[in-house]
Amino acid sequence: MGSNSVNRQIVLKRRPLGELRPEDFELIEKPVPRPASGQALLRTLWLSLDPYLRLRATGHERYFPAVPLGEPMLGGAVSRVVESEHPGFKAGDIVEDYTGWQDYALAEGHTLRKVDPSMAPISTALGVLGMPGLTAYLALIDVGKPEPGDTLVVGSAAGAVGAVVGQVGKIAGCCVVGIVGGQQKASYVTGELGFDAVIDRHKDEIGAALNRTCPDGINIYFENLGGPITDAVYPRLAHRARVVVCGGITEYTNKNPKSNSYLQNILFSEARVGGFNIFSYTGRYDDARRRLARWFKEGRLKYREDIVEGLENAPIAFGRLFDGSNFGKLLVRVSSE
Amino acid sequence: MGSNSVNRQIVLKRRPLGELRPEDFELIEKPVPRPASGQALLRTLWLSLDPYLRLRATGHERYFPAVPLGEPMLGGAVSRVVESEHPGFKAGDIVEDYTGWQDYALAEGHTLRKVDPSMAPISTALGVLGMPGLTAYLALIDVGKPEPGDTLVVGSAAGAVGAVVGQVGKIAGCCVVGIVGGQQKASYVTGELGFDAVIDRHKDEIGAALNRTCPDGINIYFENLGGPITDAVYPRLAHRARVVVCGGITEYTNKNPKSNSYLQNILFSEARVGGFNIFSYTGRYDDARRRLARWFKEGRLKYREDIVEGLENAPIAFGRLFDGSNFGKLLVRVSSE
Repeated sequence: MGSNSVNRQIVLKRRPLGELRPEDFELIEKPVPRPASGQALLRTLWLSLDPYLRLRATGHERYFPAVPLGEPMLGGAVSRVVESEHPGFKAGDIVEDYTGWQDYALAEGHTLRKVDPSMAPISTALGVLGMPGLTAYLALIDVGKPEPGDTLVVGSAAGAVGAVVGQVGKIAGCCVVGIVGGQQKASYVTGELGFDAVIDRHKDEIGAALNRTCPDGINIYFENLGGPITDAVYPRLAHRARVVVCGGITEYTNKNPKSNSYLQNILFSEARVGGFNIFSYTGRYDDARRRLARWFKEGRLKYREDIVEGLENAPIAFGRLFDGSNFGKLLVRVSSE
Repeated sequence: MGSNSVNRQIVLKRRPLGELRPEDFELIEKPVPRPASGQALLRTLWLSLDPYLRLRATGHERYFPAVPLGEPMLGGAVSRVVESEHPGFKAGDIVEDYTGWQDYALAEGHTLRKVDPSMAPISTALGVLGMPGLTAYLALIDVGKPEPGDTLVVGSAAGAVGAVVGQVGKIAGCCVVGIVGGQQKASYVTGELGFDAVIDRHKDEIGAALNRTCPDGINIYFENLGGPITDAVYPRLAHRARVVVCGGITEYTNKNPKSNSYLQNILFSEARVGGFNIFSYTGRYDDARRRLARWFKEGRLKYREDIVEGLENAPIAFGRLFDGSNFGKLLVRVSSE
């Protein structure tokens, strides 16, 4: 596991395409570096492997820069300070940082976070109390907006993020349905984690299982899968459902990075996509009409009409909405009387 | 245009599949009805043709019930009261209601809305001051959340909804780019309506045109098209962009109603889909971590780790995230020193 003079690094050798292969990486040896002023030398204790790193290996201009080829692969780690040239840290401190796949790392003191070993096992700083736990909590609260009584469906429910999402959902008063692969994980999320129901994607027919476990529809879907699960969830979204697009793990290893870009584009941009049905807004018509009428009177709101004469011509005219040949608001003048 | 004793109706004869055909409808004649107590007999003056009616003709359990076969096709109309048995209306009043494709209609007084002919031409009650105008205003404000300086892209920009969206966007301080089909519409939206730029989908290459007109990305996309325009917009969404899914007109006449259901499912459910990137939330880590730690101490937050021994095994272990074989937070123990 590395000696005191050699720093083993696993570097990215080539950009992975599709499924990861061992040949995408290479183990090299470098001398252990010495810290400059403001830096600390760290001994890696725990390295975190997370799905988003797959995107970093490929790189995407709108999400994150790619890990440079020949450089150590990126990753969060919990480490012990070996030698510190930063006043905030001393040898023996346990710290967290994105120091990557190597035995030793130099880190700038201002990027390090101290981990308190008395609070919880230090490895939790990479899990339930670290980036995956924070992701689960913040994404569920901020985008999912859970309310007591909501039905929350969580993909990858036994994973580092999904397990926390479901438990926070329970704390928030939701009915939580987890989707997992395999009986062992299914037992874990309903037994150990206290989810209300589980769907085993290896065994259950997803659509029927969602119908059974979510009879009033899905109020919150925590998306980290993509693919067929997503396809089954969308038709079952309840009115004003929230979908948290936190990841799309089934697409990360897709050979064609263009496929299913809808999900990835929402993920990369952190966009908010919202459906709108005017007939849900009747209580606000009067106020909205007053504003439009004022702008109309002020000449700031112009319009154009495309008028068809005679009720009998309505069917033909109707079709013009869909071939782009109408120009302005399409109306049928039925009578001028 | 109908006599005083005959009520012509255009009824839905069969459910349209794909493009509309005249044979989907039939013109029949019925006697003009008489109003019962609480009702009014109306003479249709203006009939509104709107894209959403295509969905009503087919019907969709999660959106609206289908127009019954043999019944008059649905539609909003502005009418003159011929005879009233409701105290709120008298003969000669101009009213608006969803009375459908017919010369005369009976309406319940409580569903009628009076139109003030002194405010604007009465046909505007079906356009800029009616359902399309209200849709444009409420959807843009509520879902699009325009802010001064935002770049707003509007599909079907010369249409009844899109034209109002763009003008309200200008009033809200946005830079507005319209997408239209044809030179005449293009001149209209930049000339008459004052949009900042226009893209002619018949002539321009959409991606290049969006790059040119939206150099800092798209902050708001007002979606009423679907199809290739949508595909070009999503990769160009700016950080925290908003997409208003108000319609998907290119899909309404699709022969396979299952295709591109992502858009329609968001439309039908009025769902809110939001992307989440944890690295945008660093300022909230401390607060979130405190909450997670409290639940952890209280035993309400459990976790499971999947531990791989040795840095050299990181590449193989990494692949397990994508084949579903990890169970719990995947960690590499690099050192126990």
